[in-house]
Amino acid sequence: MLGQTVFFRNRPRLISAAAVAGPKECAGVLGTYVDLALSDDMFGEKTFERAERKMLLYAADRCMKKAGIPPQRIDVFLSGDLLNQIISASFTAREIGIPFLGIYSACSTMSEGYLLGAALADGGYVKYALAATGSHFASAERQYRFPLEQGTTRPPQSQWTVTGAGAAIISCEGRGPCITSATVGKVVDFGVSDVNNMGAAMAPAAADTILAHLRDTGRDPSYYDLIVTGDLGALGSRIVKDLAWEKGVDISANHVDCGEIVYKVIEDEFQGGSGAGCSAAVMNSYIYDKLTGGSGIRRVLFAATGALLSTVSSGQGETIPCVSHAVAIENGEA
Amino acid sequence: MLGQTVFFRNRPRLISAAAVAGPKECAGVLGTYVDLALSDDMFGEKTFERAERKMLLYAADRCMKKAGIPPQRIDVFLSGDLLNQIISASFTAREIGIPFLGIYSACSTMSEGYLLGAALADGGYVKYALAATGSHFASAERQYRFPLEQGTTRPPQSQWTVTGAGAAIISCEGRGPCITSATVGKVVDFGVSDVNNMGAAMAPAAADTILAHLRDTGRDPSYYDLIVTGDLGALGSRIVKDLAWEKGVDISANHVDCGEIVYKVIEDEFQGGSGAGCSAAVMNSYIYDKLTGGSGIRRVLFAATGALLSTVSSGQGETIPCVSHAVAIENGEA
Repeated sequence: MLGQTVFFRNRPRLISAAAVAGPKECAGVLGTYVDLALSDDMFGEKTFERAERKMLLYAADRCMKKAGIPPQRIDVFLSGDLLNQIISASFTAREIGIPFLGIYSACSTMSEGYLLGAALADGGYVKYALAATGSHFASAERQYRFPLEQGTTRPPQSQWTVTGAGAAIISCEGRGPCITSATVGKVVDFGVSDVNNMGAAMAPAAADTILAHLRDTGRDPSYYDLIVTGDLGALGSRIVKDLAWEKGVDISANHVDCGEIVYKVIEDEFQGGSGAGCSAAVMNSYIYDKLTGGSGIRRVLFAATGALLSTVSSGQGETIPCVSHAVAIENGEA
Repeated sequence: MLGQTVFFRNRPRLISAAAVAGPKECAGVLGTYVDLALSDDMFGEKTFERAERKMLLYAADRCMKKAGIPPQRIDVFLSGDLLNQIISASFTAREIGIPFLGIYSACSTMSEGYLLGAALADGGYVKYALAATGSHFASAERQYRFPLEQGTTRPPQSQWTVTGAGAAIISCEGRGPCITSATVGKVVDFGVSDVNNMGAAMAPAAADTILAHLRDTGRDPSYYDLIVTGDLGALGSRIVKDLAWEKGVDISANHVDCGEIVYKVIEDEFQGGSGAGCSAAVMNSYIYDKLTGGSGIRRVLFAATGALLSTVSSGQGETIPCVSHAVAIENGEA
């Protein structure tokens, strides 16, 4: 490890990716790229939590089918989600029967999954790692804020939890973009306590990790075609660019935020999308497609962010600690 | 990976371990071995959650001090806990400032931490990994069952969540017992839905992983001086031995359960201890001492178990999926 960054020598690749998203999400750019665009955000289930789990299961299953690798040949399933005790991941693991390591990094769970999957594959410990996560607007609202039935109004700084899931298989065998290095984030807390303003809370963590990555790798932001954050939203995206600028690093030319691009701009999403499913669905469909297609996008730094709060910590007057893990994904290398 | 088991080539070692436990726990065997025996289970804090976090911070800090390694030299902090969104781990990570990967495996979080720490150190990705977890009786009761103030009676099949925490540093440099291999558990669900009977729910997962480990390594149970489960309790321990016996494997001669040995046998703990802190405190004090002292205990298979339920999943009528990760720890090897 150099600073906070690990380097992979054996070219672990994202050999397959899949995503599913809800109807509101698919009205935007995701609709063209996901494997399944839901017309009903209940996905035929009776509860929001079961719908969330079914999306995660779908993404995992679809990702394996696209690679032509059955669950029996996958060595490890790395997953977590926003629900208490990561039940979406655990129950999905029960269904697919793959040895399971639970992870939790709030909305940056996808980048933690990429990172650990790359380390386990690169080190020769596993041949195939499956990393996945997701979220559901209604289950997140019920757990973290208010039940939808209550009809509570949302403040203008709030974001909309993405209903969606994404999965990827990481392996040193096969084709696909390489994970060349990854930067493990430190927990950063700038003292924000407004649970409706996640973008402002998480932006300092994103800036901290992106700057650490550039320092550890000796790279300029222009090395990357895209620097992709997870779900900072409109306000958070401005803050992360400002914070980097204050440190003498200009990421404004190639920064893009999954939360900012996931929805069509209409009034009620306010700052954009959020949730573990936001970057999971965008990375494993839209961005993966750009990386593997002829778009000219060859190098992506994916730095998702997570807000590590709970209703109990906020209720006890704590501020919001945040983290961001960054994964360098490069295609077209020899 | 052979079957579900990864093997480590570069001798990652548990170079330091530390533990702290509450007064009830320290009335038993733990009292002699932990680094700090609390006389007040609030640890001077105002809330149960803050007391839990302070124990985790103490264990992590003490472990680093014993090794003479400051936080700045630790590459990664692997931690999780039972509280929603693993706030004990996240807030501890904020305090110590080490790059943080959140993990969740309920009461088997300690063995997942050992496993991932060993893989990251063995693969050369990190020099020092710090793995830690803990739990608190009162915060667990309040979150999973009933607030203590309610004075609810407990059924005879229930266990008592351990108030305690443990931490270890894993590195290929230094002295200490080696982590030679680790078996990643599959999620196993035998259909138990009684949230007061965790031992019965988790025993099949422990049996599944222990048998997979013995199969993958070609070993007989007698290879190990101890086969240590995490918190199956009295009933669960009988079940795991029965389940293994049914498959033709007798682990009764060397099986021991942290939950069964943690308390002095008095009436109100019923089946024994449970919680992420149970095996964390026992392994990182009592068992670590036996492994590094002249006790004759040289080979230990540590198979902690976790029940991957939440109050929401149980409330929606789900049964309890469980997992167990096994870590082989050997001392006295060349």
